[in-house]
Amino acid sequence: MTPTPEKIDLLIEARWIATVETDAILHNHAVAVRGGRILDILPAAEARQRYQATEQHRLEQHILIPGLINLHTHAAMTLLRGIADDKPLMEWLQRHIWPAEGALVSAPFVLDGTRLACAEMLRGGITCFNDMYFFPEAAAQAATEFGMRAALGITTLEFPGNYASDADDYIAKGLAAREACRDNPLLSFCLAPHAPYTVSDRTFQRIATLAEQLDLPIHCHIHETRQEVADSLQQHGQRPLARLQALAQLGPGFIGVHAVHLDDSEIRLLADAGCSIAHCPTSNLKLASGIARIAEMDAAGINIGLGTDGAASNNRLDMFGEMRLAALLAKGSSGDAAALPAARALRMATLNGAKALGLDAITGSIARGKQADLCAVSLAELECQPCYDPLSHLIHVAGREQVSHVWAAGNCLLEHKTLRLGKEFRLDASAALWQNKAEVCTGKAHAP
Amino acid sequence: MTPTPEKIDLLIEARWIATVETDAILHNHAVAVRGGRILDILPAAEARQRYQATEQHRLEQHILIPGLINLHTHAAMTLLRGIADDKPLMEWLQRHIWPAEGALVSAPFVLDGTRLACAEMLRGGITCFNDMYFFPEAAAQAATEFGMRAALGITTLEFPGNYASDADDYIAKGLAAREACRDNPLLSFCLAPHAPYTVSDRTFQRIATLAEQLDLPIHCHIHETRQEVADSLQQHGQRPLARLQALAQLGPGFIGVHAVHLDDSEIRLLADAGCSIAHCPTSNLKLASGIARIAEMDAAGINIGLGTDGAASNNRLDMFGEMRLAALLAKGSSGDAAALPAARALRMATLNGAKALGLDAITGSIARGKQADLCAVSLAELECQPCYDPLSHLIHVAGREQVSHVWAAGNCLLEHKTLRLGKEFRLDASAALWQNKAEVCTGKAHAP
Repeated sequence: MTPTPEKIDLLIEARWIATVETDAILHNHAVAVRGGRILDILPAAEARQRYQATEQHRLEQHILIPGLINLHTHAAMTLLRGIADDKPLMEWLQRHIWPAEGALVSAPFVLDGTRLACAEMLRGGITCFNDMYFFPEAAAQAATEFGMRAALGITTLEFPGNYASDADDYIAKGLAAREACRDNPLLSFCLAPHAPYTVSDRTFQRIATLAEQLDLPIHCHIHETRQEVADSLQQHGQRPLARLQALAQLGPGFIGVHAVHLDDSEIRLLADAGCSIAHCPTSNLKLASGIARIAEMDAAGINIGLGTDGAASNNRLDMFGEMRLAALLAKGSSGDAAALPAARALRMATLNGAKALGLDAITGSIARGKQADLCAVSLAELECQPCYDPLSHLIHVAGREQVSHVWAAGNCLLEHKTLRLGKEFRLDASAALWQNKAEVCTGKAHAP
Repeated sequence: MTPTPEKIDLLIEARWIATVETDAILHNHAVAVRGGRILDILPAAEARQRYQATEQHRLEQHILIPGLINLHTHAAMTLLRGIADDKPLMEWLQRHIWPAEGALVSAPFVLDGTRLACAEMLRGGITCFNDMYFFPEAAAQAATEFGMRAALGITTLEFPGNYASDADDYIAKGLAAREACRDNPLLSFCLAPHAPYTVSDRTFQRIATLAEQLDLPIHCHIHETRQEVADSLQQHGQRPLARLQALAQLGPGFIGVHAVHLDDSEIRLLADAGCSIAHCPTSNLKLASGIARIAEMDAAGINIGLGTDGAASNNRLDMFGEMRLAALLAKGSSGDAAALPAARALRMATLNGAKALGLDAITGSIARGKQADLCAVSLAELECQPCYDPLSHLIHVAGREQVSHVWAAGNCLLEHKTLRLGKEFRLDASAALWQNKAEVCTGKAHAP
């Protein structure tokens, strides 16, 4: 007698599944989802017998992977995408980015910019992003509208801006935003001191206390440029990481962004403290910061996630591009073609990101009991033929345009490359509006 | 009185045109084509009055650029795409690539593999490729079937293979293929001594003589790895480039592929001799060869084109990826964010490639009298919003999936992302067939 099938919400069959729990690929398996969580992972033929699903997908030429986790971005900066490329860093910042931000940054700017970012990220398979920007309640609204998971920064700097007047004000506003978002299970928060060169010792001390009291990660740019290290030596008599260590920032909750210029002892320090790194290879090259020592950091046991950085310094919020570039750079800069194999690049873009955010119990891999944060990638295109190894193709062949379906907490957010939520926002029109404002405020004539 | 409009074959209006003749962008202009050649470039409104075209395209959200020129590939190796990734170079070559090639390479393999490559390249905006492989008449057939321009290699090695028995045999067969293709205006040939470590002094001398007699470029891998340089010092008592100079290879017709490990004097040598370089940044990283000194070579005045290399070492025949990676690496490795600006990256992928092949009088830029080799790229996608600078977006934002139309010699080969020629070939099926053969011959079990 055939047992009655069990009712579930969602059943996804895929030709290949990379769970990231191990490096092995499952063939012709299915993921069963109920109440937003992964209930079962089993052979597809068996799944059809055992479960009756409200929503069902047969992805016959696809690889199913965990939703990608963008471990570092400034989401709203999509609105400044490519505003000033091919410029030296200081000219880029001082003559273009800061004036534009000074003129434009506001809650509506962050809302529109983060909506655009969410649409782009979802279309590229990203289900969770770690944001560092201003007006986090506006970013939270955008993420919620699109159904995404987000870790929002309680961004903190010493100097006044459009959002806050001083470090205490930044922290107070960020904590208030966290309080306001308490009931949304898709949102979490990080303390986000901007960088060692923009945050004082006193503020770092406050942040260490808050991190402990509230059990929050600390998300901070570190050792991005040689200049930053040299300036710290001159100003504080020590390198930035040594200063952060003295200020009790470094621990399993610390996410260091960039970490391009590290010596051997600093790699050991980060590993010993259990810190995570958000590696942003495109941004590091584009702003001429350099190449992070990822192969060595990985060998030392540091938890490394991947980030796109903001669209003003990338200019794509594309984790497929970051996975491929991370793998290529690790090989090219270490002289070892076996460095950072495909499975490891995928792990960085998923489980390692979740671990950095303290979210690895609920997302980052395809495992029973975890939230159903999933991404399906078609390998049917002729550019993917032949396919000897789907995991290698995922990193070295596929592009974000091959993402067909995305789910977060079991909700389908992208179906056959079409966004299910957020369709009501006229993203093109709002981007054009902000572009016009940016061009007026930076004195650029609008091209005919 | 309105004058009667002049009859032409093709009129393409585009929101933006990057002619590459200068770095300026034309807005709302049109390209008029007759007999496969560019007749006129003029404001779109004026063009509609002056010309009556059989085929007309209004590309309202597109940038029109010259067809991309892939200055170095082994096209048929698409059939070995990703067969052995994440392996050290020698293991990759000796245990995987060479055995697979030994078992498979034949005229049918080259025909099927080059067809797949042509389809992929056209879909990515490439109208011309410089090929180095075996059975060039099969590659010529594939290029002709798809309507592409190709420079085919008279590939030469000392050791016997499936195609030829020794260097003289390789040369004889290559010259015979050239003779057979004489009447096809889209095809040209290069002498293609594989590399200094696989070709003898005597053969290089013969090649120098042939290059002069037949006025052919010389297409050769050089200084790809440190090992190659060290081995040459041991075996020949000189570095490979010095040896090639002594063997009269270096001149305006010389295309050096990779050129990763050059000292200052070698950069000056290549510049003084008027040589070209085919820079293959993805391949150089993936095989852990290193990072070529492109910013310095460019400053020295060397003509630098871009190549994808073969799909076994990339694994995408994607010139958008190479343009972006070349720009990023030049910035990241030189420490100068202004290095290799967008216009220069586009020039490398177009006009510089044409110049290297001796084809710059007929292709490589959008200019009156040149062949209409053109590529239209849509910037309408939300990932491209906002758009402050279309040229910067072309390099740093757009992907090959945004290529909508491609023409070679005025023939539309890709229309609204659909190939016009070559539809009869079952590329998926032939790729699967060759994959199966490759897996049998390399002893890999076929995954279920």
